[in-house]
Amino acid sequence: MKVTVAYGMTERVDLSHERAVAVVTEALRNEGFGVLTTIDVRKTMWEKLGEEMPDYVILGACNPTLAYMALRDEIDVGLLLPCNVVVRTDPEDEKTVVSIQNPMIMSELTGSHQIEKVAGLAREKLERVLAEVKGVAP
Amino acid sequence: MKVTVAYGMTERVDLSHERAVAVVTEALRNEGFGVLTTIDVRKTMWEKLGEEMPDYVILGACNPTLAYMALRDEIDVGLLLPCNVVVRTDPEDEKTVVSIQNPMIMSELTGSHQIEKVAGLAREKLERVLAEVKGVAP
Repeated sequence: MKVTVAYGMTERVDLSHERAVAVVTEALRNEGFGVLTTIDVRKTMWEKLGEEMPDYVILGACNPTLAYMALRDEIDVGLLLPCNVVVRTDPEDEKTVVSIQNPMIMSELTGSHQIEKVAGLAREKLERVLAEVKGVAP
Repeated sequence: MKVTVAYGMTERVDLSHERAVAVVTEALRNEGFGVLTTIDVRKTMWEKLGEEMPDYVILGACNPTLAYMALRDEIDVGLLLPCNVVVRTDPEDEKTVVSIQNPMIMSELTGSHQIEKVAGLAREKLERVLAEVKGVAP
């Protein structure tokens, strides 16, 4: 089932958490996105608050060409970069869930038509990433 | 998706780029935000595209307590975390500019009243951060 919320697109996949992170990273690379940052939310919450939670990482993905086009149009758009990808484990059924931020929020928030075009290109690429990850065999 | 908030708050400061990054990081710490990620956009654009641009870093700031409250309400909100802080140099006058993402975009994009409360708390803290940075002597 594909669930599309306003700010993200989500798929449940038949991959372990670690393998999903690797597969997503490779699929992003194939579409020109590097993973610039990784936040291990589970580890952070445990270390900072002593709270336990399921696997949860936030990957910060950036396609330099598209990011540069957006920055040339509106320099402060870095406030909305990179594009986040969340890989987490659903505690209900232990399934791995992959969610990708909808880049169209950049054009919604800036109101820029130029950024709308760039975000549209990013969205096409990220939809392919999600489809590729969904199609990988366990 | 109707967006009614500006996505950032900005101040120009009388600090060098490096000092502004240090001062912002300390001011964030005083309000309970750790800097989890740092992206050197200028370096990335040079290395990936051979394009030159002024100093531009994106700091990923996170207040674990507030982030945990938001995640408990809506697990996918990690797609909108951490809160970005941009420190850059304006090429027109070489001044340093500090911009902080408006956390209210989290409630705008999720439509969650619980997250609206959390984002309101974050916004108060981040407004104090920006005021503190603005007030630091060169």
